[in-house]
Amino acid sequence: MKVQVNSSELLEALGHIQSIVEKRNAKPILSNVKISTKKNKMSFYTTDLEIFAKEVIEASVAGDLTTTTPIHTFYDVLRKIGSDQKVQLIFEPSEKPVKMLIKSGLSEFILPCLSAEEFPDFEEGRHDCEFKISCSDLSYLISATKHAISYDDTKYYLNGIFLHVVEDDGVKVLRAVATDVHRLAMAEVTLPSNAALLPEIILPRKTAVELLKLIEGYQGDITLGGSPNKITAIIGNTTLVSKLIDGKFPDYNKAIPYDNFKVLEASIDQLSNAIDLVTAISSEKVKAIKLKIHQSRITLHANDKISASGTIDIPASYENEEITTAFNSRYILDILDNLTGEKVVFKLNSSDRAVLVESGSDSNCKFVLMPLKI
Amino acid sequence: MKVQVNSSELLEALGHIQSIVEKRNAKPILSNVKISTKKNKMSFYTTDLEIFAKEVIEASVAGDLTTTTPIHTFYDVLRKIGSDQKVQLIFEPSEKPVKMLIKSGLSEFILPCLSAEEFPDFEEGRHDCEFKISCSDLSYLISATKHAISYDDTKYYLNGIFLHVVEDDGVKVLRAVATDVHRLAMAEVTLPSNAALLPEIILPRKTAVELLKLIEGYQGDITLGGSPNKITAIIGNTTLVSKLIDGKFPDYNKAIPYDNFKVLEASIDQLSNAIDLVTAISSEKVKAIKLKIHQSRITLHANDKISASGTIDIPASYENEEITTAFNSRYILDILDNLTGEKVVFKLNSSDRAVLVESGSDSNCKFVLMPLKI
Repeated sequence: MKVQVNSSELLEALGHIQSIVEKRNAKPILSNVKISTKKNKMSFYTTDLEIFAKEVIEASVAGDLTTTTPIHTFYDVLRKIGSDQKVQLIFEPSEKPVKMLIKSGLSEFILPCLSAEEFPDFEEGRHDCEFKISCSDLSYLISATKHAISYDDTKYYLNGIFLHVVEDDGVKVLRAVATDVHRLAMAEVTLPSNAALLPEIILPRKTAVELLKLIEGYQGDITLGGSPNKITAIIGNTTLVSKLIDGKFPDYNKAIPYDNFKVLEASIDQLSNAIDLVTAISSEKVKAIKLKIHQSRITLHANDKISASGTIDIPASYENEEITTAFNSRYILDILDNLTGEKVVFKLNSSDRAVLVESGSDSNCKFVLMPLKI
Repeated sequence: MKVQVNSSELLEALGHIQSIVEKRNAKPILSNVKISTKKNKMSFYTTDLEIFAKEVIEASVAGDLTTTTPIHTFYDVLRKIGSDQKVQLIFEPSEKPVKMLIKSGLSEFILPCLSAEEFPDFEEGRHDCEFKISCSDLSYLISATKHAISYDDTKYYLNGIFLHVVEDDGVKVLRAVATDVHRLAMAEVTLPSNAALLPEIILPRKTAVELLKLIEGYQGDITLGGSPNKITAIIGNTTLVSKLIDGKFPDYNKAIPYDNFKVLEASIDQLSNAIDLVTAISSEKVKAIKLKIHQSRITLHANDKISASGTIDIPASYENEEITTAFNSRYILDILDNLTGEKVVFKLNSSDRAVLVESGSDSNCKFVLMPLKI
């Protein structure tokens, strides 16, 4: 049984679904991609038992067949073959064990196949709520919040992004929130049509990261289907079905200091460069940065256990009494990396209270940072 | 005490000598660079107790001072300050402990200093044999051989490059040899003037690597001074003095199969691409490649423990009986990476005997490879 296909199309298809497969698997079948051919279509399936991915491409197919082969080896070989090459995939289903022969130019590869019988089923999700969302909106929700996802497995309900519908000042929005207790990120977009009935869901970190990869380089709308226990995303030719985190996301509203009225405004670029510069002094894992906020300027200060220190002044707009506070510099940089526009706004209360951070020109995402003890 | 200097000059100087300093040191002083100022000159010294480096730059210096400060922190700060910035270094020798203040623009850094008293002495090497060698010749000797240096500490005398003067067909050459028992690399250049009395020396791996880094981006002659137990290299403003490996390099001539007469010639590019392609099938650490050498072609074959395999044919010039042999593919690629010209020549005997590898157009370097058991 022969399939003729262009290497670029194979590479693109496998590229979309290969990264969810773990490099090491106790069960060999989970290292494999399920390949299914029918009527000039070739379908590929991968899974890590949490996420199920499917991709379909057109190919010149000489018969029906379903089998599985190691995805990372298959993908590595194709990458070396390179793009825009004619590739033949040849299967001899009568031979046992089945093998896949890859021919391209003067090279020939044999990959072992395992029967697809034991490959976990891909269940096309059926959802009560299905809606379309633009690439840019979904990307915005995930990008702005993913850095704040907790790595603490004991708080498993924080190991993802909380996605839910909120009515804010009479306007319905789709909101994403993530927090690791030390910081919180929140982003929202206008509620897409037909999304009003989306249940509250917690999207696991890996699913969020895979979605973001798929969105990159794709333009157009994504179809999302949501149920309390799973989500389906259709991005071009790729379908992703993911389990959700089964837990209750805490009431994050209590953590947002809406009543901080001491407003500091600074240039995103200047602040980000200044933090990068002064923390060069520190070889510590958590590089703390001290901010002394004066009238019209911030003095940033970092030091290291060898008693090295760095200081820099940058201009800022601030009209209240002096505050000295300190943060994990990585956390501020994570926020600054996600802000659009030129200015960052910090809303402060006192040196030991949480601070609210926003873009000067985009009120759709907000960040909360807990200060470090000075 | 103030020094005014351009950041680019400082960066270049420290860049040359910082990498010999280990990231972790039991003695804090060994993490430091010794700084010494005198008459508009600033000298920097680093060491790992095996290699001693010195670099001198011009600077606007307001007094004499000798101290030490952590080199990696100093270098990291300068890199963040960036090139072409005015930098002031300020020392207050009367204050204890002494600190170095780095000022640039609106930023200010304080680095701790340690007294230079305990800093190991830099002994300007005096050598019986001193000569000049071109950058390209020294680079050739090291680049062609360093991949074959042994990592086996029990054979410490193989942990470096054996550099020695040889008379070959009545012509005196400077020859470099390295071997890890499985492979051997040998390169030679016309003996530089005044180098005839250079004793046989074994240049440690780290010294060879540091020399290569210094040669990159430098043009002109290098002054080398050699004694039985140390070597000095002067490369522009940088002086490197290195201890040598105190051991006897084995008689490598016995390992070179000069009497292999079955000559195989192939394109370096084709062979290198073919190896890269077929070994994509293998996830093993040592990727073995099997070569079936026929009349006018080579069939390359690789396989993996999951019973995946790859095969490719490339054209070759070969007129003897068929030989099937196998090598560590990394070792062949290391050789091909170092060959100039378009063709590689393999001189073979039988499938289980060492093979001699050369460039088709440069007989100044030779490589010996032991086959793997098939």
